[in-house]
Parts: sequence; structure tokens; C-alpha cells
Amino acid sequence: MPYVNIRITKEGATPEQKLELIKGSTELLQRVLNKNPATTFVIIDEVETDSWGLAGENITTLRAREAAEKAKEQK
Amino acid sequence: MPYVNIRITKEGATPEQKLELIKGSTELLQRVLNKNPATTFVIIDEVETDSWGLAGENITTLRAREAAEKAKEQK
Amino acid sequence: MPYVNIRITKEGATPEQKLELIKGSTELLQRVLNKNPATTFVIIDEVETDSWGLAGENITTLRAREAAEKAKEQK
Amino acid sequence: MPYVNIRITKEGATPEQKLELIKGSTELLQRVLNKNPATTFVIIDEVETDSWGLAGENITTLRAREAAEKAKEQK
Amino acid sequence: MPYVNIRITKEGATPEQKLELIKGSTELLQRVLNKNPATTFVIIDEVETDSWGLAGENITTLRAREAAEKAKEQK
Amino acid sequence: MPYVNIRITKEGATPEQKLELIKGSTELLQRVLNKNPATTFVIIDEVETDSWGLAGENITTLRAREAAEKAKEQK
Repeated sequence: MPYVNIRITKEGATPEQKLELIKGSTELLQRVLNKNPATTFVIIDEVETDSWGLAGENITTLRAREAAEKAKEQK
Repeated sequence: MPYVNIRITKEGATPEQKLELIKGSTELLQRVLNKNPATTFVIIDEVETDSWGLAGENITTLRAREAAEKAKEQK
Repeated sequence: MPYVNIRITKEGATPEQKLELIKGSTELLQRVLNKNPATTFVIIDEVETDSWGLAGENITTLRAREAAEKAKEQK
Repeated sequence: MPYVNIRITKEGATPEQKLELIKGSTELLQRVLNKNPATTFVIIDEVETDSWGLAGENITTLRAREAAEKAKEQK
Repeated sequence: MPYVNIRITKEGATPEQKLELIKGSTELLQRVLNKNPATTFVIIDEVETDSWGLAGENITTLRAREAAEKAKEQK
Repeated sequence: MPYVNIRITKEGATPEQKLELIKGSTELLQRVLNKNPATTFVIIDEVETDSWGLAGENITTLRAREAAEKAKEQK
């Protein structure tokens, strides 16, 4: 009866992708620890990029910098 | 000073129902462990049915199947 | 299929008391939101009093002060 | 590689304030435990006031009472 | 930069099995959402069977019943 | 009434250091969002290095590699 909580930034994951995460996690727990899928929970939380910090900055800023660098490279 | 986190699928729980969960959890902790209600936190998270998995499928699919079965029975 | 996480300080809750919390939470979700007990999870985390803070101090200190006050009153 | 999860009521925290929480938490972990900011995660969850309970009531009710008391004082 | 929290009952998962869960989750997030493994966190919590409830009973009781049934079948 | 959950690897944080984290988080929430310390919770979870994954490996392995590199440098 495992409980899996996956937290990702809210950047457009589709229902199909979320379903793949649900299936993949459930299978992983079954394969590694023989856990029963019937009582395996998976909850996906999508978090606004303003509300997620890494290295002391928010992901909104990180994504903007990544986009700027990509734009530069393509010139 | 307990902390209670209740996670449910987002399927229309009303403010009144959420308040019942808050009151019920607070009373439960007081009754069983003599915890002080003044510092008992209850947080309810409502999760989209696409983001909650059980038995390797999402709750959106589970609810659709339940509804289809119910419709069949009623014929 | 609710998920309930109860976090309390580690101060001697017995298996019987924890079972009461499990039963009480499960019944609460069934009564208020008609949730199926068969897929209701309850997880209780017991946290060391040194690792739990309230009002900027840890619970170890809070409990020591409460005990000192009680001792004073009884003199 | 610490993980910090800050849960607050959804009452208008701005991106700038959330960034301050991200920076402040990251610095705190670095200062106290020498944790590497490059792998410090901070996630801020904002919770509806109807979904947060304290002392057996929800924060919506608490805020309404606080506002009423303030209004009375100002008369 | 996903965060994955896997909660299982404390029933003897080995470091090797836990590593498989870490690797499997990290690969899953990379495959499905192209998430960078370098900033993917996986935290595994092992919870005492007395502290985990399902269907209003604790897992200690569930495991005892499963063992009793198995013993009966083998007679 | 914020709730702060700090998760770190179990590598010898002292009660004094944990208290600094409690105080620092509580002050941060008060300074940035004017949150009342009296109802600010801070919970610190210490996680075994075998149970924490980063970049698809566990922290036990990461620490061993860091120690080996350090030893090499010092020769």
C-alpha cells in the first residue's frame, strides 16, 4: 500500500503524461517491492513556477534565463 | 500541537463539509491524545482527478467507469 | 480514496491510541464525504520534540516549562 | 540538498514575497548546516482559507472575526 | 526539478531496493517529462506498520491476518 | 499560521542547530508575511542517506565519493 507523491512545476503536463507517471510509479513499486497495485496511491502536485525555489531563485526566473540563453545561441 | 493533512479528490466538497472534517479531526486528536485544539492544524488538499492514481489508473477513469456501470444497472 | 497524514510529537502514543486515530479518521471521511474505507489511507508520523517548533522554540523546551510550572503550582 | 515546504493561507502573497521566503530559507540552511544552495528546494503551497483549520474552525471564520473586532475598535 | 516522496511500510526494504526506487523514479520523470536527473529528489519514508492504516485497521493487523490465512491454506 | 517542513539528511544535526532552523523559519515568516509566531509550526524531518536520492543515486554514495575526492586532494 505505498503512497507516492510527485511534485513538479506547473508547466503544461498533460493528463496522458500524468497517467504515465501514475502507471510507471505503480509498476516500479510492484517490480521492486512486490507492492499491490490495487492499494498504491500516486498523487501529482503541480506547483506554480513562482512558488518553487532552487538555488535561492524561483523557477520563473530560471526558465526566463534558460530561454534567453537559448535565443542567444540561435542567433 | 498536531498537524493533520487530509488529501481528497477535488469533487465538490463544500466549505461546510470541509469544516466538518476540520472539527472532526480536531476533536479526534483531543479525545484520543488530549491534544490542545488551540494549536491543532488541519489542512485539506483537493487534488484534480487526473492527478490522483489508484491501481495504476487515474480517478477520472475510475469515476467514468463507475458512472457507466451505474447507468447499465439502471436500465 | 482519501489520504490522511497525522503528525504528532513522539511522546508515547500507544498502538491502541494510534489505531483509534486510524479508525476515527476513516469514519470521519466516510461520514462527511461518503469516502470508501477500503481505500482510505492514514499515516501517523511521530516527530521528536527537538524537531518540532512552535512559536520559535522547540517542544522539548515547551514541555520542560510546562512541567516546571506544574511543579510550582503543586508546592 | 534540503527540501523546504512552506504552507501558508492563500491571502495575496506576491511573487516578490515568495521569492524572499525562497531566498531566506535557502540562506538559513546554508548558514546553519552548510547546505549547498544549488540543491536546496523550496516549495510554497498556498491553501484556501476554507481548507485550513485552527482550533476547530476554518481561517475564513477566524479572519472574519478579526475584521469585525478591528471594526469595533475603530468606532 | 521534481520532488518524489515514496512512503512505504517499514518491512525490510534493503538499501539496494531503495536505490532501485530512486533510479526508477528519476528515469520515469526524465522519460515522461524530460526532467533533469541532476535536480530530481527522491525521498523514501518507511513507516511502522502500527502507524499506517488502511480500511480502518493498521497494517500490523492486516499482515497478521494474511499470515494466518496463508498458514491455514498450507495445512 | 504557517506550517514549515524542513527535510534534511540525517547527518548529525544537533538540537541547537535544529533550534536555529526553527527560530530562523519563524522569524522569516514573520518578517516577510507578518505571520504570527504563536501559531507558526516548524517540523524537521531527518532522512537516512540511503533513503534520499539525487541525480539517480543515493546520498550515501554521494558522500562516499565526496570523501574519496577529498582524500585524494589531500595527498
